[in-house]
Amino acid sequence: MASPKVAVIMGSDSDFDKMRGCIKRLKDFKIEPVVRIISAHRTPYEAEEFAKNAKDNGIEIIIAAAGKAAHLGGVLAAFTTLPVIGVPIKSSTMDGLDSLLSMVQMPSGIPVACVAIDGGDNAAILAAQMLALKYDYLEKLLCDHKKSMAEGVMKKNRSVQAMVEEI
Amino acid sequence: MASPKVAVIMGSDSDFDKMRGCIKRLKDFKIEPVVRIISAHRTPYEAEEFAKNAKDNGIEIIIAAAGKAAHLGGVLAAFTTLPVIGVPIKSSTMDGLDSLLSMVQMPSGIPVACVAIDGGDNAAILAAQMLALKYDYLEKLLCDHKKSMAEGVMKKNRSVQAMVEEI
Amino acid sequence: MASPKVAVIMGSDSDFDKMRGCIKRLKDFKIEPVVRIISAHRTPYEAEEFAKNAKDNGIEIIIAAAGKAAHLGGVLAAFTTLPVIGVPIKSSTMDGLDSLLSMVQMPSGIPVACVAIDGGDNAAILAAQMLALKYDYLEKLLCDHKKSMAEGVMKKNRSVQAMVEEI
Amino acid sequence: MASPKVAVIMGSDSDFDKMRGCIKRLKDFKIEPVVRIISAHRTPYEAEEFAKNAKDNGIEIIIAAAGKAAHLGGVLAAFTTLPVIGVPIKSSTMDGLDSLLSMVQMPSGIPVACVAIDGGDNAAILAAQMLALKYDYLEKLLCDHKKSMAEGVMKKNRSVQAMVEEI
Amino acid sequence: MASPKVAVIMGSDSDFDKMRGCIKRLKDFKIEPVVRIISAHRTPYEAEEFAKNAKDNGIEIIIAAAGKAAHLGGVLAAFTTLPVIGVPIKSSTMDGLDSLLSMVQMPSGIPVACVAIDGGDNAAILAAQMLALKYDYLEKLLCDHKKSMAEGVMKKNRSVQAMVEEI
Amino acid sequence: MASPKVAVIMGSDSDFDKMRGCIKRLKDFKIEPVVRIISAHRTPYEAEEFAKNAKDNGIEIIIAAAGKAAHLGGVLAAFTTLPVIGVPIKSSTMDGLDSLLSMVQMPSGIPVACVAIDGGDNAAILAAQMLALKYDYLEKLLCDHKKSMAEGVMKKNRSVQAMVEEI
Amino acid sequence: MASPKVAVIMGSDSDFDKMRGCIKRLKDFKIEPVVRIISAHRTPYEAEEFAKNAKDNGIEIIIAAAGKAAHLGGVLAAFTTLPVIGVPIKSSTMDGLDSLLSMVQMPSGIPVACVAIDGGDNAAILAAQMLALKYDYLEKLLCDHKKSMAEGVMKKNRSVQAMVEEI
Amino acid sequence: MASPKVAVIMGSDSDFDKMRGCIKRLKDFKIEPVVRIISAHRTPYEAEEFAKNAKDNGIEIIIAAAGKAAHLGGVLAAFTTLPVIGVPIKSSTMDGLDSLLSMVQMPSGIPVACVAIDGGDNAAILAAQMLALKYDYLEKLLCDHKKSMAEGVMKKNRSVQAMVEEI
Repeated sequence: MASPKVAVIMGSDSDFDKMRGCIKRLKDFKIEPVVRIISAHRTPYEAEEFAKNAKDNGIEIIIAAAGKAAHLGGVLAAFTTLPVIGVPIKSSTMDGLDSLLSMVQMPSGIPVACVAIDGGDNAAILAAQMLALKYDYLEKLLCDHKKSMAEGVMKKNRSVQAMVEEI
Repeated sequence: MASPKVAVIMGSDSDFDKMRGCIKRLKDFKIEPVVRIISAHRTPYEAEEFAKNAKDNGIEIIIAAAGKAAHLGGVLAAFTTLPVIGVPIKSSTMDGLDSLLSMVQMPSGIPVACVAIDGGDNAAILAAQMLALKYDYLEKLLCDHKKSMAEGVMKKNRSVQAMVEEI
Repeated sequence: MASPKVAVIMGSDSDFDKMRGCIKRLKDFKIEPVVRIISAHRTPYEAEEFAKNAKDNGIEIIIAAAGKAAHLGGVLAAFTTLPVIGVPIKSSTMDGLDSLLSMVQMPSGIPVACVAIDGGDNAAILAAQMLALKYDYLEKLLCDHKKSMAEGVMKKNRSVQAMVEEI
Repeated sequence: MASPKVAVIMGSDSDFDKMRGCIKRLKDFKIEPVVRIISAHRTPYEAEEFAKNAKDNGIEIIIAAAGKAAHLGGVLAAFTTLPVIGVPIKSSTMDGLDSLLSMVQMPSGIPVACVAIDGGDNAAILAAQMLALKYDYLEKLLCDHKKSMAEGVMKKNRSVQAMVEEI
Repeated sequence: MASPKVAVIMGSDSDFDKMRGCIKRLKDFKIEPVVRIISAHRTPYEAEEFAKNAKDNGIEIIIAAAGKAAHLGGVLAAFTTLPVIGVPIKSSTMDGLDSLLSMVQMPSGIPVACVAIDGGDNAAILAAQMLALKYDYLEKLLCDHKKSMAEGVMKKNRSVQAMVEEI
Repeated sequence: MASPKVAVIMGSDSDFDKMRGCIKRLKDFKIEPVVRIISAHRTPYEAEEFAKNAKDNGIEIIIAAAGKAAHLGGVLAAFTTLPVIGVPIKSSTMDGLDSLLSMVQMPSGIPVACVAIDGGDNAAILAAQMLALKYDYLEKLLCDHKKSMAEGVMKKNRSVQAMVEEI
Repeated sequence: MASPKVAVIMGSDSDFDKMRGCIKRLKDFKIEPVVRIISAHRTPYEAEEFAKNAKDNGIEIIIAAAGKAAHLGGVLAAFTTLPVIGVPIKSSTMDGLDSLLSMVQMPSGIPVACVAIDGGDNAAILAAQMLALKYDYLEKLLCDHKKSMAEGVMKKNRSVQAMVEEI
Repeated sequence: MASPKVAVIMGSDSDFDKMRGCIKRLKDFKIEPVVRIISAHRTPYEAEEFAKNAKDNGIEIIIAAAGKAAHLGGVLAAFTTLPVIGVPIKSSTMDGLDSLLSMVQMPSGIPVACVAIDGGDNAAILAAQMLALKYDYLEKLLCDHKKSMAEGVMKKNRSVQAMVEEI
């Protein structure tokens, strides 16, 4: 069976490094990332085309990452009924608050599912959680991931005890 | 076929009026709302029990609405791999910023899909979008809703012209 | 000679009352207001059509008023080279900060000329100032308006003296 | 025919580096930048003189860049009916919020067209858009610029695909 | 001997009610309030004239009250070496933060002595404290005022005890 | 055995209504509230005297409630080693953010235990939790309170189901 | 007699460096720090277990340090009646405001005693102040610490005089 | 005749570098700076003593610089009728907003004259402006300083023209 497809759209290639973890995480979940640099403002036709045809192209969820007046999520959501996940990217001013508010404060009717500022990793996990409604194999991967995170914390808990002694 | 189930969890019954539209919208989409008042802080065992068993109880998505230090979304998400949608509720101070940041700024690994402050309606639509990945009937309802919203705007556009004349 | 045309686009008819002064001011300046309710998110095709054709339809400037995640200005600007003036509208949460940041923090390449929160009156004056570069009659009207404002302040200054005596 | 003139006023020479792109962009649009360091507070007479005489000196638009309590835009606008574009400059505290609010929140009657924090490039483009109302040659340059930006994004989109493969 | 004179300049007569307490307090301190409605933006010449001539007109301190992009304090300070006290006035948006930052974040070289948002009463007391450096009679009035405030608090402390009993 | 004593200090009697619930809650826990109106700024000697002598007067914890530049908690903490709990009170501007930051951002060495804006009830519960380290009877009351809160939430959960049906 | 025990719980081992001073300070006060890495979201069962059993395990106070959506303090407080002290940790965005609001804005019924952003040292002192209600030896240590801080400031005051001369 | 004395009080010696310019500027104005490290919280008795006796010790104005919960200005103002100028110092979190609000939002009755965040230089100039009410020599120095600043800006304006050519 083919992997489910999730689009990862970035407003600028300068966001790529912050979204690398998101792409990696999707691959870990056997989800095919369809990555595009599309600007809501500089390439509005591409944004519209991509969003309108996403479903027909087999894409099931769209992740949109953008900074400053981060309209990308809302613009894509306007042209599709697929779930759109927004990742506000912190830019050089306002410490991410501008991106967050532009992403999350969507008007009634057109939701964007917003995650934390620079929260690309969580966008991928959220996409996997949505897809797990339909793809059974993801449930197990998500449980494994949850367990692995818990073990990671517990391991760190053990290793930190020695450092406490030394203080 | 049975309706899909979406839980709507509120941290306090004082949030009920703000979430009425969410419940109504779910019903419009033929989704069964499972509504609970569960406080992350006052009834933590109920929160845990609900989240842990949600999947086994046939719930596919959890919507969590809370104000102030709005931990509810994160606390539920900790105990399930179902998608959790957070609705930050504006309380009497800080104009909703506290609820928003507490909801959306989740650490890596445990996402909450945050919508706008007091954005219960969008939480329902987002839930329907997620479920439409699996339930085909929802795609049509979502398209109808999108069309109906557009027509509403266009109708208002026409009716406003007379008011412009009078200025 | 025909009046110059300025579009006044509102994201929702609930913004109409806040933009009434803007429309009135345009009329005072013998500018024809072309008023539309167009939502960037609910009627994205109308937004695109309007912006793309605005110049051919004789419109010289676009004023866009919207609240919350106020994408309207940016979305229109993406499809036109006409100047776009943004009016952030204060909504029920965040005291206008969300609208302001969504409007003003546009990425490099696609400017929106942002005025104050709920600043519809200034949007009209700014439009007149831009048009005065081309339409000579406006220069005089703008000077008259400036003089009239100054006289208004000076008149209030005189009338307030009696109130000072009574304190 | 002579080039149109746009003034670029900075409150301090420390803002020069942030406005270099603005000056460059004006030149690209065959607009003559008239650059001045004028402080609203340290050289108020120069500010007044410049603004009062700007129109007579052939200037058609004023761009004002300043940080902190960024009064420069408002002070210049008080003495002229030319359009004034404000560029809030981020300083060492408050991450640009102080400059933004001081620039954009102008009282009714005296608008300043505010662009993003540190948004000098957009100030130049906005000036060109205004001037294009009158100078036909600018319309083509603006369209070319828009097309070139879109191509830039599309090129980056292509080049990023290889990086996706490697993740 | 003549009373010392303190100017109370308001950007708009809508600020008058918020500054009534300031004027009253100055009178209590036997200081003559010279009250003017002068807008930094609508009557810039009056602002300049007033500030330039204030010292020659016997004024020793200027209190400036304004809202939104509250440039008034800075504009007056640019034209005088008299101390300027700024009172940021809360307007309909941003809860006073815009006025505060516009008033207080003055660049190096031109200070404005900022008091709390809507803090007209304190502006008058601060003016009296400055004048007490020179006018000996004020020292006693300031001490009396301090004592009277303390007694007021202590009286309220006593009267509140009965209310505590009833809880 | 005598009840433990907790001081409830308010910066102004206008804070009394917001602290009524705090006083009531202390009484519910059989804690004697010692209520005082003491202003850090208007009655600094009383503040110092109260804090210095609090321990000798049998007080074990100090709750300080104040608004705006809410120095009261810090000023009292400077003169005592008793735990000081701060309650930031929302005033007419800045939506409580000023009070919160003034209360909570204490420098290293002198802590104030800050609760939510207008969080008087929680200040009383926190005081009871501290006293329960020493007074065994409080442990049971705190457990009862926790249980009673949980039951309250669960009861509301049941009663809300009928409202859901009607939507 | 055994030392009193205070738990220091961190949401992530990346918070360890910021909490080193807290652990050191507890040791200085002869308090045994029980340090754990427990994530409210990644190890929710461990969080519950720890908080539920803390009292039985001899712990008297819990210090919880976390960043971003800092739910840790609230989650632990939900399962215990011990006092919980919250330390909001500044993370890479929002300059600590998200952590602060998530920590401090707890709903009525479940307090968290919040200290300053990155205020681990004060958390330890606050814990010592609470324990001093019961353990007499701490009173002396707290007074010594207060005296030593004062002497430190006075010493710095003397040493700074030479630097003043040189300016 | 002896120089007038202005106290410069810092809450911590870590503020010294930020206040060096303030001390230098006072010396330039032939004002004797009386510099002290006094913490409102760590050395409250010294703060009280200093403020109470300042007038008798010949001090005419107090400048108080502090960060975070910057109570220093308010605490000193509580014990004196001398004018107190507050300098909010930016610390490691909240970008100076906490210091600013703690300094400026003083309750009615006890003003602090607040300057910009890290605005030590302006505090010195403001002090000179206040003293110029009494000391005639300062008027000339202030005028010279104003003129010198203006010349500095005009010089920079000239030197920047070459840089414009090169762009």
